[in-house]
Amino acid sequence: SRTLRLAVIPGDGIGQEVVAEGLKVLAAVLPADSKVETTEYDLGARRYHATGETLPDSVLEELKHNDAILLGAIGDPSVPSGVLERGLLLKLRFAFDHHVNLRPGKLFPGVSSPLAGEPQIDFVVVREGTEGPYVGNGGTLRTGTPEEIATEVSLNTAFGIERVVRDAFARAQARPRKKLTLVHKNNVLVHAGHLWTRIFNAVAAEFPEVSTDYLHVDAATIFFVTQPERFDVIVTDNLFGDILTDLAAAVTGGIGLAASGNINPSGAFPSMFEPVHGSAPDIAGQGKADPTATVLSVAMLLQHLGLVDEAARIESAVAADLAERIGKAPRSTSEVGDALAARVAG
Amino acid sequence: SRTLRLAVIPGDGIGQEVVAEGLKVLAAVLPADSKVETTEYDLGARRYHATGETLPDSVLEELKHNDAILLGAIGDPSVPSGVLERGLLLKLRFAFDHHVNLRPGKLFPGVSSPLAGEPQIDFVVVREGTEGPYVGNGGTLRTGTPEEIATEVSLNTAFGIERVVRDAFARAQARPRKKLTLVHKNNVLVHAGHLWTRIFNAVAAEFPEVSTDYLHVDAATIFFVTQPERFDVIVTDNLFGDILTDLAAAVTGGIGLAASGNINPSGAFPSMFEPVHGSAPDIAGQGKADPTATVLSVAMLLQHLGLVDEAARIESAVAADLAERIGKAPRSTSEVGDALAARVAG
Ligand SMILES: CC(C)[C@H](C(=O)O)[C@@H](O)C(=O)O
Ligand SMILES: CC(C)[C@H](C(=O)O)[C@@H](O)C(=O)O
Repeated sequence: SRTLRLAVIPGDGIGQEVVAEGLKVLAAVLPADSKVETTEYDLGARRYHATGETLPDSVLEELKHNDAILLGAIGDPSVPSGVLERGLLLKLRFAFDHHVNLRPGKLFPGVSSPLAGEPQIDFVVVREGTEGPYVGNGGTLRTGTPEEIATEVSLNTAFGIERVVRDAFARAQARPRKKLTLVHKNNVLVHAGHLWTRIFNAVAAEFPEVSTDYLHVDAATIFFVTQPERFDVIVTDNLFGDILTDLAAAVTGGIGLAASGNINPSGAFPSMFEPVHGSAPDIAGQGKADPTATVLSVAMLLQHLGLVDEAARIESAVAADLAERIGKAPRSTSEVGDALAARVAG
Repeated sequence: SRTLRLAVIPGDGIGQEVVAEGLKVLAAVLPADSKVETTEYDLGARRYHATGETLPDSVLEELKHNDAILLGAIGDPSVPSGVLERGLLLKLRFAFDHHVNLRPGKLFPGVSSPLAGEPQIDFVVVREGTEGPYVGNGGTLRTGTPEEIATEVSLNTAFGIERVVRDAFARAQARPRKKLTLVHKNNVLVHAGHLWTRIFNAVAAEFPEVSTDYLHVDAATIFFVTQPERFDVIVTDNLFGDILTDLAAAVTGGIGLAASGNINPSGAFPSMFEPVHGSAPDIAGQGKADPTATVLSVAMLLQHLGLVDEAARIESAVAADLAERIGKAPRSTSEVGDALAARVAG
């Protein structure tokens, strides 16, 4: 028997709705001798407007005492851009040292892609999660004057790069195709780019079975739409990973299906799982959001906690559900959740 | 009668081949009373290996005495990544203050896109060309040790942003749809992102006829593949523009067709026109490269110099040529150039 302590941050907009379905499927898939203890945290736009808080220290402290975190979506147009992103979402990723931001790009059978010709897409992006241009380093001078300047400093460490590169090699090694692509822009961002490249090449020597290549980020976007089947595992920097994984979501059927894990492989802090999509305020509260990305994020959560069979059952349920959607009328958020819960229980 | 002084930098790989066709079409399109005086500059990998030089000051000085520069492609695997890019291509863009990096994204009739459903694509990206993460600011500390750190500093000035934003508004104003989209990542890169956003909003007030919107760069990549018809003019930072314009090229039929201009609108220094594609060493010297991107870059060059009719004739010739390619066997580089030269002369 096992108790899973799960912190839940539904967040803003459709976050509430999709998280409810994720938890429904989680409850349905767990073995009889396991149970989930969830603690819900009210964070996001509502709390910010009510109290001015984005992520109080006391909440950060409490969150640590969980096996994992499930997050819906953060952000609302009523809050200035960056406040919740930097003060809540990125703060969690940085505070809990989520250096492996794992984002599968898989086109499930039956799902239509905006790409012509039914491509075969099945790769995973390992996005660095705690460094690069995301560190928040920088500022403005002579703010609000015609002489204003603004800087953004990308910080990259051998320590931070090596651990994520090593993680990506291990993932590539464990996959049938055993292929790893480094994406950066080392012909322009020569300082950070060459550091990434040197470390990538050094670690490659320890994984002789993994075949490797390198692409500039601009060229990578071309291959994402012309030849997505060429990718197996991709490792890249925080910002390039952000951009590439939205594009990956688009070519694999949309952000309604894209799952992600913000992983701390050491287990020192809880890892956090969330759909790649945002809070979509335009459709919030209407039961229109597709909870599939959240359900797949729950599968990643289970996989991370070693509940491998349960994770696989969710994946199969999603695959079967997607294959049956073809030509059918759209279902509501809870209808999709019910269908998936029934499948994983059955 | 008019004499056009043109500096030509064929560069590496397929650069030589495509530039030859660009010049062929240029000669054919010019009115009888105009002539071109070309000076060819041997810059790129060969010169670097022979002399260690990337862009000698004397050449930079000579280049100034031209009306425009036509560049083929720079880069070769025999040269360490970044040496020619930073020491030659970017050095030219920065030295000649090419702050408007103009890159049309147009799907010509008959050209097949990797996107399903024959989308209508006709936008132009105004990429800032002299600031942002491209400035080369940054470095490494404890290089080569496990404690190494590398930085990249993105520099952004109100001066630099305002002039390119203003240019983009003017271009949007002159187009039928009059729509301008700012792309940045102001929810994470809050210092630079908010400066861009503030200036964009301020300049917008001067162009009441232009409708505007804002997209994060990650979301923009999604729309590039799911709804490219939503874009008219896009203005963005140097790095985001690099990434988006390769993706734009991919969805509009490939980098064989993507033209660009590195423009100094003041005319203080010559503007430079080049295909978006690289030197493609794998197909160099085989007559396989498509010179269309270079020919379209020549059209942009003529447009910039006020030879508007000639520019339009090249565009029409390319459109007609592309429409006739459907189902035909591929032609060689010079066959395409000959066909286009014949069309513009006729
Ligand atoms: C909301 C934003 C801060 C976030 C990011 O940029 O990482 C999002 O785009 C994502 O990809 O999870
Ligand atoms: C070659 C490289 C320096 C260049 C850039 O990054 O600007 C290229 O990708 C481009 O888009 O013109």
